[in-house]
Amino acid sequence: MLNFSFYNPTNIIFGKDQMKNLDTLVPKNAKILITYGGGSVKRFGTLDKVKEELGKSEREIFEFGGIEANPRFETLMKAVEIVRDKKIDFLLAVGGGSVMDGTKFIAIASTTDEFIGKESELLKFGFNPIPVKTALPFGTVVTLPATGSEMNNGAVITKGIDKLPIFSNFTFPKFSILDPTLTYSLPATQVANGVVDTFIHTVEQYVTYPVNAGFQDRTAEGILQTLIEVGKETIENPTNYDARANLVWCATMALNGLIGSGVPQDWTTHMIGHEMTALFGLDHAKTLAVVQPAIWKVRKSSKKEKLLQYAERVWNIKDGKEDEKIDLAIMKTEKFFHSLGIKTKLSDYNIGEDDIQKIINSLEKHGMTALSESREVTLEISEEILRKAL
Amino acid sequence: MLNFSFYNPTNIIFGKDQMKNLDTLVPKNAKILITYGGGSVKRFGTLDKVKEELGKSEREIFEFGGIEANPRFETLMKAVEIVRDKKIDFLLAVGGGSVMDGTKFIAIASTTDEFIGKESELLKFGFNPIPVKTALPFGTVVTLPATGSEMNNGAVITKGIDKLPIFSNFTFPKFSILDPTLTYSLPATQVANGVVDTFIHTVEQYVTYPVNAGFQDRTAEGILQTLIEVGKETIENPTNYDARANLVWCATMALNGLIGSGVPQDWTTHMIGHEMTALFGLDHAKTLAVVQPAIWKVRKSSKKEKLLQYAERVWNIKDGKEDEKIDLAIMKTEKFFHSLGIKTKLSDYNIGEDDIQKIINSLEKHGMTALSESREVTLEISEEILRKAL
Repeated sequence: MLNFSFYNPTNIIFGKDQMKNLDTLVPKNAKILITYGGGSVKRFGTLDKVKEELGKSEREIFEFGGIEANPRFETLMKAVEIVRDKKIDFLLAVGGGSVMDGTKFIAIASTTDEFIGKESELLKFGFNPIPVKTALPFGTVVTLPATGSEMNNGAVITKGIDKLPIFSNFTFPKFSILDPTLTYSLPATQVANGVVDTFIHTVEQYVTYPVNAGFQDRTAEGILQTLIEVGKETIENPTNYDARANLVWCATMALNGLIGSGVPQDWTTHMIGHEMTALFGLDHAKTLAVVQPAIWKVRKSSKKEKLLQYAERVWNIKDGKEDEKIDLAIMKTEKFFHSLGIKTKLSDYNIGEDDIQKIINSLEKHGMTALSESREVTLEISEEILRKAL
Repeated sequence: MLNFSFYNPTNIIFGKDQMKNLDTLVPKNAKILITYGGGSVKRFGTLDKVKEELGKSEREIFEFGGIEANPRFETLMKAVEIVRDKKIDFLLAVGGGSVMDGTKFIAIASTTDEFIGKESELLKFGFNPIPVKTALPFGTVVTLPATGSEMNNGAVITKGIDKLPIFSNFTFPKFSILDPTLTYSLPATQVANGVVDTFIHTVEQYVTYPVNAGFQDRTAEGILQTLIEVGKETIENPTNYDARANLVWCATMALNGLIGSGVPQDWTTHMIGHEMTALFGLDHAKTLAVVQPAIWKVRKSSKKEKLLQYAERVWNIKDGKEDEKIDLAIMKTEKFFHSLGIKTKLSDYNIGEDDIQKIINSLEKHGMTALSESREVTLEISEEILRKAL
């Protein structure tokens, strides 16, 4: 097991009718900016419910809607101006990963005085935290299970055609309300994206090389098995509470630092996928579903031990030669994504051979020339992976 | 899945040579009381190492040793007096569960002014948190893997012959340093106790009745499988780093609230076991090893579904009738404890039929008349359980 630190102070309030706790969770007398995305939180009454609960104590409430999927720096800066102008002292994100991610940026940018006028410098490539010392406190009400943003300190912000990560010790939500019933109204395709996103978050931290981390491996396997168990069901029967609750909790646990503590991590799929979303507008989860199986095919030998463990423990593949077990596990993974209505080839999304060079150019521009748990994925290997995904 | 809240702000620093982080984790200029138990932290140099690291910045350091296994109210009150007298502002527990538990009590009692002179009223039976609003901040350096106290807010304090729980939102450690190598010098019997303790903590939250909580169930199963995998090895080869690291991390994860979130919990074994320790001085883990299998034998029908799941998923028992599977799983559990050198019968510890009534009397005195996940374990059933354990 590798050395690690694990710190996660977010207060999770999970289950049916948990919105009623908002009034005790949000400071009284606060000046609150509620942040949200498109109109769905209005259409389905979530926003009204939030305002009703917040209205139970003396609070001044402002709203900022229109945070887009893949939240944009320019959009978020408008919220930053409201925060400064109205002297907002608490943010409440109501939505999915994009709204939560965007709110994290707002929380940092609006309180980091030395970056006034040059807030874009808060965004930079790579995994080094930005040098900030403070952020506005914020909570979240989660309406889409996928990103884990409700219980971690990271976010991805889009600027121009770049997708840029932020991390900060100050951007854990103070609390997150996860009421699975709030996600019932999601379109099937977004739920399917959530299942795939959670699945890939998990394997990025699990299918690497073994370091004898029993708890972490088995917990990752438990998330994968649970997703396989509930994935199709929660898409087809969105109001099956337990199926949806299991998806929501797995989504949170897959990316809150727990299963990645003390083990190597890959993230090649995400890095290549981010470029594809930026270039072609493809849904994040769909980029992952395309790239991940191709990576396993290309890097089969360097990931051999963990791919075998994945085959045996997650898919219960006990017979056959090692190579056959691995190939079968990859095939079963692709079939699982297909069963959710998610396609796994570049050509399914009208991305052709000519586009591969664009992706490689973006990776190069962003310094993504040595990806994976072993830093061995060069641009050449990334290209090979993308060709395998054609 | 049941509704739940999960909050755990302890910063975990895990791995080899992590003591070097003490100087940044503990506030500078603090007045620190280091708390510890018997002489082992002196004998093995841990205390010197701690003081060396703390001495790297300006700090005033005091010591309080002699916190016994099953820490006593009277002992801890001596530390409370030192805290008040010296105006200590940070506590550092160096040891195992008893030292950490005791330190939590010191943290509360020394700062809760309305209880001055009547600190014993901070201790009461049952699971209701005591009505305190503050506690001194504290960190821990863990030398014994077992109790999970390093990452939760609970403690058990002994007063007279009573074992009394405290819980408080203010008694999560600020940080815990878990360096598995610090536990290498433990006697084999204490390591064995740690394995059993962790095992029982897990099944108390898992072998109840099913509520379709995929993540929680599989994570609990993962802890149990990991303990079965490493238990004997880490006792026989204490310096096998990975085996010990897996035990240490499982011990923490078994009782930090995670696997118990959103599922029913039992704790009958602990309640009966606490009385046995108080009456006969038997090690906590050994009481658990005696009581748990007997509970499963007596309550087989009400725990049937989860016992079957336990048999199939943890012990890989696929053949036979349902009853046979369950019986085999219980037998394998007992054999596992035996393989660690832990006996599982009352008679192994010179506790006879005549003593059972004493245990029942204690349970009655403490109001433990409706135990378990279903509150159905009356004193009569507790007696039946103890007879089964003879």
